[in-house]
Amino acid sequence: MSSNAAPTTTKSERTRALIRDVALRSFRERGYDQTTIRLIAQEAGVSVGTTNYHFASKNDLVQELYLEVQTAHRTVALPLLAETDDLVERLGIVYRSGLEQLEPYHRFAPEFLSAAVSPRSSINPLSGDSTESRDIVIGLFRDAVTGAADKLPAEFEEAIPSALMVGHLLLALFWVYDSSPDRVRTQRLLSRGLRLLKTALPLIRMRILRKPLRELLDLVAEVGA
Amino acid sequence: MSSNAAPTTTKSERTRALIRDVALRSFRERGYDQTTIRLIAQEAGVSVGTTNYHFASKNDLVQELYLEVQTAHRTVALPLLAETDDLVERLGIVYRSGLEQLEPYHRFAPEFLSAAVSPRSSINPLSGDSTESRDIVIGLFRDAVTGAADKLPAEFEEAIPSALMVGHLLLALFWVYDSSPDRVRTQRLLSRGLRLLKTALPLIRMRILRKPLRELLDLVAEVGA
Repeated sequence: MSSNAAPTTTKSERTRALIRDVALRSFRERGYDQTTIRLIAQEAGVSVGTTNYHFASKNDLVQELYLEVQTAHRTVALPLLAETDDLVERLGIVYRSGLEQLEPYHRFAPEFLSAAVSPRSSINPLSGDSTESRDIVIGLFRDAVTGAADKLPAEFEEAIPSALMVGHLLLALFWVYDSSPDRVRTQRLLSRGLRLLKTALPLIRMRILRKPLRELLDLVAEVGA
Repeated sequence: MSSNAAPTTTKSERTRALIRDVALRSFRERGYDQTTIRLIAQEAGVSVGTTNYHFASKNDLVQELYLEVQTAHRTVALPLLAETDDLVERLGIVYRSGLEQLEPYHRFAPEFLSAAVSPRSSINPLSGDSTESRDIVIGLFRDAVTGAADKLPAEFEEAIPSALMVGHLLLALFWVYDSSPDRVRTQRLLSRGLRLLKTALPLIRMRILRKPLRELLDLVAEVGA
């Protein structure tokens, strides 16, 4: 239809994109529980069979949602990261822009949480199926750390992006529970956490703290590996 | 039947206790999802109506489970606390004995987590319905802190028991995900966290760190208030 369409776009690809768009809108407007493959097929004007051909289950569409959210997260964060080389500010940018992407889903967040929290869930953000979107977040934290003027001890380098990503999941967990207007409590938790980090950062370099801290970070990072 | 039964025990109280015992065994043996009021009634030899008269829903029985678990937690922890006045050791006792009580449920922990994690769930450990069992845990952490030789800054006193309880919930969350033999990874996370705390404890008293740390603790404590 559009002259801007890439010439290689096949009908199958267009159908897939349509189903995906309908599903993402449904997650935003109806939440997780009320979104069904049947409804998506109906609204996309295709059969349930066609929908299942492209996406074997509702959870495959949740993975598309995760990718959409984290792609937007990266798009928002990267230009902001280019503006500062302060480590704590850079971490704040990645955390804040990540929360912003979640905000349209806050009303339905408890449903998504219940469906995703089990370690057996295919939409668990730490599951194998979620690797692609998780890697975007880990990559952003890696950028935030490596691009900062303030260098962390080299022995922290490997574990820190995954550990910060786990921190992002915990912050998102707090946000699910946050019913304050404009999520001021989550904003406050983040800004207080960052302020403490800024004050404590010189201490992290103390020899006596480095080993126990690194060992703890390694363990937290394993969660997200 | 038993001559040890308190003379004030009515038939209704005995029925209630029976239903409760059957339900707790069912949670341990079948987990959350497969336990139903119908099965409990059948195994207790009473009607569904009688079961509902004593416990309006399955989740009321989960609250009994929480109370059983935390009462056992206190029973195990208190004599151990009497043996040391070292703050970090005392915290270790409360955390370790808390995890021990959860261990028999590990196989079904993902089910309980999915059912309890929503802030709208009546069996959320932070919900109003869970106040009694949560207060046991907060009380244990208060005992652990106030009975220690090593005193924390007075300004931390109010927030710290609730903040430590939130820490216990996060440790339990890690434990749900832990499939290592004998839960060695959770044990390691706890012992490394405690070791870091032991090393960092003198720094907590530094003026420059005290204010941001207290503000952060206050906010975490609000979660459990």
